[in-house]
Amino acid sequence: MARNRLEEFAPMFYPKSHAVIGASANAMKFGGRFLRVLISFGYKGKLYAVNPQESEILGLETYARVGDIPESVDLATIAVPARAVPGIVEECLAKGIKTAQILSAGFTEAGEEGQRLETEVARTAARGIRIVGPNCFGIYCPDGGITILPGERLPRESGPVAFITQSGGYAIRVPNRASGWGVRFSKVISYGNACDVNECDLLEYLYQDPETKVITAYMEGVKDGPRFFRLLQEVCLAKPVILWKGGFTRGGARAAQSHTASLSGEESIWDAVFKQTGAIRVNSLEELLDTTIAFLHLGEQRGRRVCVVGGGGGIGVAAADACERVGLSVPLFSAELQGKLAAIVPPAGASVRNPVDVGGPFPPPAMLRAVMETVLTDGNVDTMIVDELQFATTTDIMKSDPLRAQASRELAGVPVDTKNKFNKPVMMVMPVEATGADAVEFEGARRSLTDYYLGQGLPVYLTLERAAKALANLIGYYQRRDAMSSSGPGGMK
Amino acid sequence: MARNRLEEFAPMFYPKSHAVIGASANAMKFGGRFLRVLISFGYKGKLYAVNPQESEILGLETYARVGDIPESVDLATIAVPARAVPGIVEECLAKGIKTAQILSAGFTEAGEEGQRLETEVARTAARGIRIVGPNCFGIYCPDGGITILPGERLPRESGPVAFITQSGGYAIRVPNRASGWGVRFSKVISYGNACDVNECDLLEYLYQDPETKVITAYMEGVKDGPRFFRLLQEVCLAKPVILWKGGFTRGGARAAQSHTASLSGEESIWDAVFKQTGAIRVNSLEELLDTTIAFLHLGEQRGRRVCVVGGGGGIGVAAADACERVGLSVPLFSAELQGKLAAIVPPAGASVRNPVDVGGPFPPPAMLRAVMETVLTDGNVDTMIVDELQFATTTDIMKSDPLRAQASRELAGVPVDTKNKFNKPVMMVMPVEATGADAVEFEGARRSLTDYYLGQGLPVYLTLERAAKALANLIGYYQRRDAMSSSGPGGMK
Repeated sequence: MARNRLEEFAPMFYPKSHAVIGASANAMKFGGRFLRVLISFGYKGKLYAVNPQESEILGLETYARVGDIPESVDLATIAVPARAVPGIVEECLAKGIKTAQILSAGFTEAGEEGQRLETEVARTAARGIRIVGPNCFGIYCPDGGITILPGERLPRESGPVAFITQSGGYAIRVPNRASGWGVRFSKVISYGNACDVNECDLLEYLYQDPETKVITAYMEGVKDGPRFFRLLQEVCLAKPVILWKGGFTRGGARAAQSHTASLSGEESIWDAVFKQTGAIRVNSLEELLDTTIAFLHLGEQRGRRVCVVGGGGGIGVAAADACERVGLSVPLFSAELQGKLAAIVPPAGASVRNPVDVGGPFPPPAMLRAVMETVLTDGNVDTMIVDELQFATTTDIMKSDPLRAQASRELAGVPVDTKNKFNKPVMMVMPVEATGADAVEFEGARRSLTDYYLGQGLPVYLTLERAAKALANLIGYYQRRDAMSSSGPGGMK
Repeated sequence: MARNRLEEFAPMFYPKSHAVIGASANAMKFGGRFLRVLISFGYKGKLYAVNPQESEILGLETYARVGDIPESVDLATIAVPARAVPGIVEECLAKGIKTAQILSAGFTEAGEEGQRLETEVARTAARGIRIVGPNCFGIYCPDGGITILPGERLPRESGPVAFITQSGGYAIRVPNRASGWGVRFSKVISYGNACDVNECDLLEYLYQDPETKVITAYMEGVKDGPRFFRLLQEVCLAKPVILWKGGFTRGGARAAQSHTASLSGEESIWDAVFKQTGAIRVNSLEELLDTTIAFLHLGEQRGRRVCVVGGGGGIGVAAADACERVGLSVPLFSAELQGKLAAIVPPAGASVRNPVDVGGPFPPPAMLRAVMETVLTDGNVDTMIVDELQFATTTDIMKSDPLRAQASRELAGVPVDTKNKFNKPVMMVMPVEATGADAVEFEGARRSLTDYYLGQGLPVYLTLERAAKALANLIGYYQRRDAMSSSGPGGMK
């Protein structure tokens, strides 16, 4: 990984000047929409509109051709019909522009004619301009003031997570959904058909990027398998790479081909890639987010012993099943610890063997505190999961029942206090119990509480299965990394 | 299945008179709470409070002992400490009461002394009183006017689904969560340790019960394996049985033992049970509900060919992967059909091979309609899944942008119109896109739209993976049932 990608890609992620080719006063056109989104997002650099048919575009300096722009341009965004793209890219190269993103579709994914156009673009790129796309939504980099085509409302603040994706749809869905879980992104790159800049270039860049701590990706295929493999090994030693690979089934592979012209590859080959590089395999958008949240809040964890504290016996059974199915362990407590816990929980209808059943979903706060502290003092578990206790309540109850309101607030604070006191990871499971359209206020309370826990460093999950899988993914990464570091360069051969 | 369980269990589910033993004016006591819940739920029969220490309980006729009640009693609910229970059950038998539920915990699940008490209760039961529990929340039967211990707010209206559960926690969680998805229950039975009435008796009852069309269950162990196996075979030929078995892992099995004193059994044995009886295996509360919703709305389905219509290429890849991973197929459309669809969708950035990508999450309503009708006219798919299109919108937009509002309403109606016109199953996938605490209004709109679709017979799912799994579970049931019916009594041997 010799090249300095930070320097090479700086004009693309932090453009001081930006030409939108295919810009339009008409918001129904792609380029018109992109321009509006960019302005509304708050791009602070110099912005040029390029369109030979329009002269008055949103009050910007407008040029017929990119070559007419008198100053230098860092980034060109190209949003013209596919057949016009190769000529435009030539003009950009001639103008000395070093980076471009092509939003237009209609290339290799669309058939032979498109393939010819894309080959032409790639040839031009090789002569000195780095190109993201075509068939993509482009780049979101809040610190660079730029956003993707549908990314008008994405957060303006940056964060430690990067996401590279062949799918434009996920380029907007992932940061959108993640935002409610407190996750912020350094960069999101929708790179589409990858005619020039590909997943390897982007991985190198994000590896070097000091803003990025966790790398996430949705991929349908890779352009250069051996390079990707070697690179992934190297990157994973420094930063976790959470990778969702789409297109494993026959139908999925066919869809990938018509989506981004990707060759998906055999699942068995990918199994080996995950095993030998240390990349974290996820199989859905939800798992990608869940795992990211674990990395953001739990730190380096290598221990698989979990204590589950919940308010019900069946929930404990399901929790133990879910944990042990993904390779965590829910160890039986010592007789001594069981004895201590038995003195705390109700005499009947509870359990102290692990999972701990505190007898109901709304235990007295002091009881929950004593249980959590007793378990963590004993010290034989690595992580505590607080499972489906009833922390959230409606303002209705909060107003009408001040005692219950006080108890609710106290109960909600116990996991945070305990985590801070023992400095051990505590995960929260808070499902959507009130599912009806008439219960959104309760859902609002649940979400506010989620914000509170995330702000205190306690990751929150919608089900215990998902919490367990995210934790197992986290531990698996650090354990594989240890093994690979100790086996020297080249990894687990 | 010779016995008439309907008659035997009628006093338990539809009690005309009901004695609460351990009733109290004190709402902090179990019996006091149960009594309040029952009254607030609207029990219409004759209600007696029994407590030797209290004489004035909520204005009810109060007796020191159940034997003092002058009239006959259909059902006794027992909520006294475990050690007093055997004597109380004897008194109930002497009084001629035919059915009882014991809510108290502290029996076999708690150790040797508890086991002795439970054995005593079971002996008394065998002499002529049917007993649900102990260590349970009892019975919810809205048409009988009764509800479980924490079931004050459960729906008053009955429905076609029954749920039998060894876990009290799930006895409240399942109908609560299901209620927001439009699912109503004929009966929920929390049966705990099953000292007398067990899963087999309840299965027989629900098999005979004309109110019940779909049987769901959470079990940790069974009392009589061979009887359960034969019975399940018979029941599954008439009604679907959706079964979540808890306690397969070491930790889960241990938790089950301390929860309901159940012996969980080997997973391999249960694999055979599912295979040879036709019961539908689910592995979580979510899957149990998802599958139930499929049975309620999709009717008998045996075809595995699915068409996915969505607004994005990556989403199509993920959809195809998710469908084919659970044994559905997303067949490539014929060249002819692809040609017809290509004339409808945008020229670039779309796909017509199946999955169909209409180019974006908010297509013009007429385009979606034409796509759905063209695919269903062709007739080579069995089910259509409409995946993550943007049907819901905020009142904010609805008010500020009347054109968009009109288009949103029109778009939302298309799947319903199409389903009605072609009489083919249409499933909706509507994820929670707006996850933040500040976005609950949008979540409210999504839930209202969910209600609308469910009311029109279109099941709604939070993710495509869950929709696909539910559909595969449904199809698997009918296919196995066909095979078992044709192989004659005794099933697939």
